[in-house]
Amino acid sequence: MEKIIIKLQKRSYPIIIADKLFNDFLPFWPLNIDDKVVLITNDRVAPIYLNILRNLLIRSGIVTDQLILPDGEQNKSLITLDTIFTKLLKKNYDRSTILIGLGGGVIGDITGFAAATYQRGIRFIQVPTTLLAQVDASIGGKTGINHILGKNMIGAFHQPIAVIINLDVLHTLSMKEFSSGLAEIIKYAIALDSSFFGWLESHLDDLLILHLPSLIYCIRRCCELKASIIAIDERDQGIRSVLNLGHTYGHAIESYLGYSQWSHGESIAAGIMMAVNTALRLNQFNCSDAKRIKLLLTRAGLPVRGPKEMTSKNYLEYMKRDKKSISGQLNLVLPTSIGNVKTVFNVNHELVSSSIEDTNN
Amino acid sequence: MEKIIIKLQKRSYPIIIADKLFNDFLPFWPLNIDDKVVLITNDRVAPIYLNILRNLLIRSGIVTDQLILPDGEQNKSLITLDTIFTKLLKKNYDRSTILIGLGGGVIGDITGFAAATYQRGIRFIQVPTTLLAQVDASIGGKTGINHILGKNMIGAFHQPIAVIINLDVLHTLSMKEFSSGLAEIIKYAIALDSSFFGWLESHLDDLLILHLPSLIYCIRRCCELKASIIAIDERDQGIRSVLNLGHTYGHAIESYLGYSQWSHGESIAAGIMMAVNTALRLNQFNCSDAKRIKLLLTRAGLPVRGPKEMTSKNYLEYMKRDKKSISGQLNLVLPTSIGNVKTVFNVNHELVSSSIEDTNN
Repeated sequence: MEKIIIKLQKRSYPIIIADKLFNDFLPFWPLNIDDKVVLITNDRVAPIYLNILRNLLIRSGIVTDQLILPDGEQNKSLITLDTIFTKLLKKNYDRSTILIGLGGGVIGDITGFAAATYQRGIRFIQVPTTLLAQVDASIGGKTGINHILGKNMIGAFHQPIAVIINLDVLHTLSMKEFSSGLAEIIKYAIALDSSFFGWLESHLDDLLILHLPSLIYCIRRCCELKASIIAIDERDQGIRSVLNLGHTYGHAIESYLGYSQWSHGESIAAGIMMAVNTALRLNQFNCSDAKRIKLLLTRAGLPVRGPKEMTSKNYLEYMKRDKKSISGQLNLVLPTSIGNVKTVFNVNHELVSSSIEDTNN
Repeated sequence: MEKIIIKLQKRSYPIIIADKLFNDFLPFWPLNIDDKVVLITNDRVAPIYLNILRNLLIRSGIVTDQLILPDGEQNKSLITLDTIFTKLLKKNYDRSTILIGLGGGVIGDITGFAAATYQRGIRFIQVPTTLLAQVDASIGGKTGINHILGKNMIGAFHQPIAVIINLDVLHTLSMKEFSSGLAEIIKYAIALDSSFFGWLESHLDDLLILHLPSLIYCIRRCCELKASIIAIDERDQGIRSVLNLGHTYGHAIESYLGYSQWSHGESIAAGIMMAVNTALRLNQFNCSDAKRIKLLLTRAGLPVRGPKEMTSKNYLEYMKRDKKSISGQLNLVLPTSIGNVKTVFNVNHELVSSSIEDTNN
């Protein structure tokens, strides 16, 4: 069992990584006998994992209830949030209640935001069931929901009390879902760690066949990288933005498509290539590294172009609304080499348009 | 111009108290030229104060927009919150935007919660236009909205960057609204400051005729008392609960009546008397102080009984859902003398019922 601590003084918490974690109460140690827990999950995860986890908690003396939400990014909404509040209030759940988000990024984000705002804040635990959520969304306390006019536009910083990463769940993911997680993993390597990028080039095939020691190394490395950033910049006011490599472009894709068809990771993969091409046009990146990135994304089953129907104008419209944009200026996280990025402020809109077209042609 | 600082390290902020504050940019000093501000107000306050404040800001070089919401506690809802988000997103307002809540407690609470959650948190300023909001809701960073199943059940702690208390606005309040503020003022005195209670007994008539030096002294004292509590317990995990004297009972009245008919202050006044009667039954309070409280509330034009149609059972049902209740146990803030309160845990339900009946008979 691997354990990484997110260091935030009084709000520090562990990330536990191992297989078979639903057989053992140990990783759920922040819970005490007679604690009241509400498991929040979706209708895809529930049939596979809800009863296993529920029974484990009940056997361990935890008062356990559950709420099953409809699956899908379109349900990361105010309406679903209200469903959670109604459930909690109808049953008189008080401030000592602990929510557990059992699912992918959507469940984790909305459960976290419900915990952030129910009675002005209660505790929660993340149990991510997708590779994407395990390496990214479940860690770091970014919680929130989408608005019809933009992804993650409503939210709060609220740290969980534990993140429990059970590798067993990866066996039930589709290839598309697994690839989606690989996109964020590759992003960490490009943004922060060139030797990890090299490791990924050597071990991608092992990851694709779910070789356990490789998965553990890979997820652990991503969690360590993210933990080191969050310890410095919990509230995303500085260095944490490096984790947004490819996201300003990728969010435009997701918003344009109404959070459907393309997975988050697929959008981010295309977004990474657009960031790479923007960096190339700015003469701050070299062609051979661009090719290595393109190859690795392709091997991971990810797209290296955006959706055919989107024009560069479509991208700009959404990108100007990005949370890093100030007064319509584009501030973009762009690579300078593999393992290094920097934020470039007020990037020329036409240069960005051309870079998007370079990527898509 | 009086200035009190709420001391919260990096998040410290000033409360400015004076008349004629909408004639002068000085109290709005946290704003800089070219800052983007969205004034959020309601359709009752807008015709009186919106243009005055808007013109002041525009003349001072602030980019100023506005949103006018329907007046009323029933609009402190997820739906109204979504109206704010839609406005902000449609116009591409970014993280540097500053919201100003111009109105009573409803506007302050919902503007603050919108600021707490828009793009995971932006800055805001409180400009309270009721006595109640000036002495209570605008200070301390409690923001939130109501749920059909309970008042203030959804929210966040998010401190404003300034609170600007313009005494001129008190001239446009109805007597009912002014009394509502007096209820919270009397609450501060009972909970924290016996000599202030004595001052109120001597000066209530001055306050009722809006005698300016008395108003300034009174509002300043309330702000100082609240500031001293918040500096110790920002997140309401301990001593801050003393400010809830009468509120567990009062919230039950408001919830039962669907946040209509009775003002917040009227509900709290009746709630204070119920807390006093509970304290009497617990033999922790004396009859002569109870009479002084009843007399002062009555002189302030406030009710000292709950609504006729509510039974003690109705109260208990809502009180068990109070944010201080744990697993249905009633934890109540009760006076021990004028100027002192304590939280009594797990108060017997029948004793509470009888105390409510004592109050209402």
